[in-house]
Amino acid sequence: MSTNDTTQSEKTQDSSQKVTFGSEAPLRLDCGVELKNHTIAFEAYGTLNEQKNNAILICHALTGDQYVASPHPITKKPGWWDIVIGPGKIFDTDKYFIICPNVIGGCMGTTGPKEINPDTGKPWGVEFPVITIPDMVRQQALLISHFGIDKLFMVVGGSMGGMQALEWASTYPDRVFASIPIATAPHHSAQNIALYEVGRQAIMADPEWCDGKYLEQGRTPKRGLSVARMAGHITYLSEASLQQKFGRRLQDRHEVTFGFDADFQVESYLRHQGSTFVDRFDANSYLYVSRAMDYFDLAGNNGGVLANAFKDTPVRFCVISFTSDWHYPTAESRLTVKALNAVAANVSFAEIESDKGHDAFLLDEPEFHNVLSGFINGAAKHWGLS
Amino acid sequence: MSTNDTTQSEKTQDSSQKVTFGSEAPLRLDCGVELKNHTIAFEAYGTLNEQKNNAILICHALTGDQYVASPHPITKKPGWWDIVIGPGKIFDTDKYFIICPNVIGGCMGTTGPKEINPDTGKPWGVEFPVITIPDMVRQQALLISHFGIDKLFMVVGGSMGGMQALEWASTYPDRVFASIPIATAPHHSAQNIALYEVGRQAIMADPEWCDGKYLEQGRTPKRGLSVARMAGHITYLSEASLQQKFGRRLQDRHEVTFGFDADFQVESYLRHQGSTFVDRFDANSYLYVSRAMDYFDLAGNNGGVLANAFKDTPVRFCVISFTSDWHYPTAESRLTVKALNAVAANVSFAEIESDKGHDAFLLDEPEFHNVLSGFINGAAKHWGLS
Repeated sequence: MSTNDTTQSEKTQDSSQKVTFGSEAPLRLDCGVELKNHTIAFEAYGTLNEQKNNAILICHALTGDQYVASPHPITKKPGWWDIVIGPGKIFDTDKYFIICPNVIGGCMGTTGPKEINPDTGKPWGVEFPVITIPDMVRQQALLISHFGIDKLFMVVGGSMGGMQALEWASTYPDRVFASIPIATAPHHSAQNIALYEVGRQAIMADPEWCDGKYLEQGRTPKRGLSVARMAGHITYLSEASLQQKFGRRLQDRHEVTFGFDADFQVESYLRHQGSTFVDRFDANSYLYVSRAMDYFDLAGNNGGVLANAFKDTPVRFCVISFTSDWHYPTAESRLTVKALNAVAANVSFAEIESDKGHDAFLLDEPEFHNVLSGFINGAAKHWGLS
Repeated sequence: MSTNDTTQSEKTQDSSQKVTFGSEAPLRLDCGVELKNHTIAFEAYGTLNEQKNNAILICHALTGDQYVASPHPITKKPGWWDIVIGPGKIFDTDKYFIICPNVIGGCMGTTGPKEINPDTGKPWGVEFPVITIPDMVRQQALLISHFGIDKLFMVVGGSMGGMQALEWASTYPDRVFASIPIATAPHHSAQNIALYEVGRQAIMADPEWCDGKYLEQGRTPKRGLSVARMAGHITYLSEASLQQKFGRRLQDRHEVTFGFDADFQVESYLRHQGSTFVDRFDANSYLYVSRAMDYFDLAGNNGGVLANAFKDTPVRFCVISFTSDWHYPTAESRLTVKALNAVAANVSFAEIESDKGHDAFLLDEPEFHNVLSGFINGAAKHWGLS
């Protein structure tokens, strides 16, 4: 799949693939650093048609990865959005060519703090340059070009994936036919910056973090990363869903133990979330990718006016939020919708009634799935795909 | 002020006082342990009248203390509820005798994990028995008896203080004329248990915690406690108040630094909250007192029916919540109000319009203060105090 002298593509040990770009396609980052060599790992499903116009890019969230519809190589769990991607499913792999890349700064094969810095021969660690959502999208655009795709049929993502879906439409309006930003925001709120800062401080407070050089020293800041995950995980669920799922029910006991064990099911669940997360995620990646979210500010990058990010956009949008999502509440999605309306963009907006909180976008929510398939099928018709 | 052989009272170095109970008044804890000697530190303002019927007990929140209306001995800041307590103020010290004790398990002089275990001569640390809200109230009742007070005019508290105000009314209905539980709940929700579990895990993940024996070893789990405080602090503010106070404004810089410093004001603010907290609070106390909140379950302790906690209650209640409080939302206060209505109790309920979140109860909120003074003045009339 190599398109020129220096670009190299390879199959990895698991199902995912990698493309490494060389000097012909350096990645200029927002921080000013230029990565001369950089790799992007991705999963692909379905077949790119001859016209190369049936490609859908799926963008993952903070702790997601490219394993959107295939088993995770470490956890062995099904893909994180398996429910909607596959033959005959909403994102029908019999019709569409689906690409899901790991973001730059991530830890599943794409260039990031866990990978080796070619200049030193050691893992980058915190020497890795701080990346942004636009950086992620810029690297993805190189991958899309590598496939010979001029224009994506669609970019889709939830949470941080939704930020990428917005950024794609803003930066490459002529390379995207439609965009579905889900449960997301055009910038991080103060509360979200604060919540992620707690996670980062927990990681950096762990002495096993070793000032970011833990990989070199053969250590892992498991406890700090676990606390960060626990703090994050609470924001993914609504109060109501926590109450329904766990309430005040005790974990394998009839009475409280008057101690600091996980007496309550919700404690046990959270500890489990924390301790399993560290097996599949890199602590420095958590710092970098969460920082990219904090820095995301579509209005700020467009003269302080969000509508400017979408001036004269030809892209069709379907903006989706969930009533019980307090991490990226509907009000944040409305900012995007208002800006799109201000530039007379083609935009559908759906606020889905759900008590499942932010994570609703990953779950079996029939109304949400109806909106998705309705929009995709309509867009496919307009784009001449069906 | 000693009432018998073994009870001892003393003035401490700062403004607060202490009473130490001996074998005549042991404290039987819910966990089954009996504390034969135990101390309660408190502040008192105003004068107890001859009839001893003008006493108001103020109960503090998780990270509060007895310095409700006098400067804090460590931070030198004014008392945490100075705004409403003093001569001519809502809680008028010219009329009322105001007592504010530090809770058992706390760290400002009352018996707790920081104090010396008389059996070992070393700080209790995590050998201290796990305490509950009813334990706190039971010890406070001993203090009230020590003053010779049969019946309090009023018990008042916000957040965890509100839990104590509810518990007082439930356990000692004949010893309280009126109760004002503010921004609180009759039990901890799954979300709140989860949030405090993150804080506890952050503390226990800090190697300086030394399995709870840091005092013996001359160490302090500053970083863990700081992260716990940061996580807690976010819950005290509403999303709107964080957005108004900080938004995405940068801290002493014009551009982001592409790093992990506190680029944003909200990060700087949170880090400051964390780092100053460790100077005045004990990490093990944070574990114990937050655990007491998790365990609080007025319905659970009354056969699963909240109304049973208040059957035939003669106490007058004023339940207060704030619209933007997501830590103890209005719905939780409504549970209390419904239970009180079910037993035909005398209850006023006010939901105060405020965008300041949970912390509104500590702030200058005129509507809230109007409700407080209206209720207090009315109750004083009925109680024959004016």
